[in-house]
Amino acid sequence: MNLSSIYERLIVLNSEYARCINSDQLEKWPDFFQENCLYKITTAANVKNGFDAGIIYADSKAMLADRINALRNANIYERQRYRHILGLPYVVEDAERECAVQTPFVVIRIMGSGQMELFASGEYRDRVTVLSADELKFAERIVVCDGDRFDTLLAIPL
Amino acid sequence: MNLSSIYERLIVLNSEYARCINSDQLEKWPDFFQENCLYKITTAANVKNGFDAGIIYADSKAMLADRINALRNANIYERQRYRHILGLPYVVEDAERECAVQTPFVVIRIMGSGQMELFASGEYRDRVTVLSADELKFAERIVVCDGDRFDTLLAIPL
Amino acid sequence: MNLSSIYERLIVLNSEYARCINSDQLEKWPDFFQENCLYKITTAANVKNGFDAGIIYADSKAMLADRINALRNANIYERQRYRHILGLPYVVEDAERECAVQTPFVVIRIMGSGQMELFASGEYRDRVTVLSADELKFAERIVVCDGDRFDTLLAIPL
Repeated sequence: MNLSSIYERLIVLNSEYARCINSDQLEKWPDFFQENCLYKITTAANVKNGFDAGIIYADSKAMLADRINALRNANIYERQRYRHILGLPYVVEDAERECAVQTPFVVIRIMGSGQMELFASGEYRDRVTVLSADELKFAERIVVCDGDRFDTLLAIPL
Repeated sequence: MNLSSIYERLIVLNSEYARCINSDQLEKWPDFFQENCLYKITTAANVKNGFDAGIIYADSKAMLADRINALRNANIYERQRYRHILGLPYVVEDAERECAVQTPFVVIRIMGSGQMELFASGEYRDRVTVLSADELKFAERIVVCDGDRFDTLLAIPL
Repeated sequence: MNLSSIYERLIVLNSEYARCINSDQLEKWPDFFQENCLYKITTAANVKNGFDAGIIYADSKAMLADRINALRNANIYERQRYRHILGLPYVVEDAERECAVQTPFVVIRIMGSGQMELFASGEYRDRVTVLSADELKFAERIVVCDGDRFDTLLAIPL
């Protein structure tokens, strides 16, 4: 596909990321990241208070793959579905080889009963490496959630 | 409007589609489709189980127009409003004359009382015909809903 | 950032606007507007009935700045957070120096307890002035809300 700007490529990257998770192709999810990367789920309150730990933390693509394996092998009968809706990327910094980007998201959970609920909202704070005109990877994706209910949040990647 | 890529044109197509429904210009809705087309509303569960029927099914633009006529003539006092929010298109396949595209959506329903609720979420699975640089039409739009509550879902197009 | 079309610039404008509010940089919010501008929050019902007043009304950038000052000085202990998700812009009219644009939005409110709720949905009806290739400002932003519950809506800009 012939894309015309870095902004458009960031939009496409995010649409592919959301689709990977929504269509349950989780094995492909680590491929969005660099070998050495940072993936973290945290909350706005944690960020504000300077807490660095995060709810989920991985610093390599291998750790992300492990996480998916664990998820697949856990005997959880998941009848719920998730739907990620991403907003438009905001480019904080745009250098030749790397962009800093923030993108808002909302995740809806649909229970087996058909009931829908707002599950999570927040923003991605990313550093995206531009490997080539057609290949962008996350060097860093910090998922900053607005709220801090995390009982079942661990079930799927955000 | 001078658009620079097929991706951008797909975004514009979707924004026009959502706006047509949200602004209650339903008579223009069939114009987004080819004369011979497929429009279907179904659920993720149906798709998974190989059920082909769908909740709503139309295979021509004329059938879509009939549907809007029926809706307008039905004596339903609709005080609710709907708000479609579309995510970013994911291009599955991009040929010269046709694209396969998937686009997530969420529909919010606003009751006369002002109460808001999540009404539906899911994804469009489209085949879009590129008639000319400025004219795209749906050859196929399959609306795959995440949930399967459909009591009043029949009221408006998705 | 090298943007390739007016449509893309409108998308970026909206992503910056949403991010300004979501990240609580409200002092920068008036900068999205022309000196002489129109900012109004109203409802779909008001628009339909021809009521012109609106719930909030400002016709200069200075009035918008006043509004933020008032908000900052009010002793409200705001534990809630807001998350704006914007849809894709629909360009109604595209002249050289000004565009008429409509963009759907949803606002989610996250309470201190972590509870999330749909707070508002609707559409922006904008007149955007093209000052230069990289600088767009709102000459007019009419916020038309779908519902009409407005108890606490006055707390933040939409």
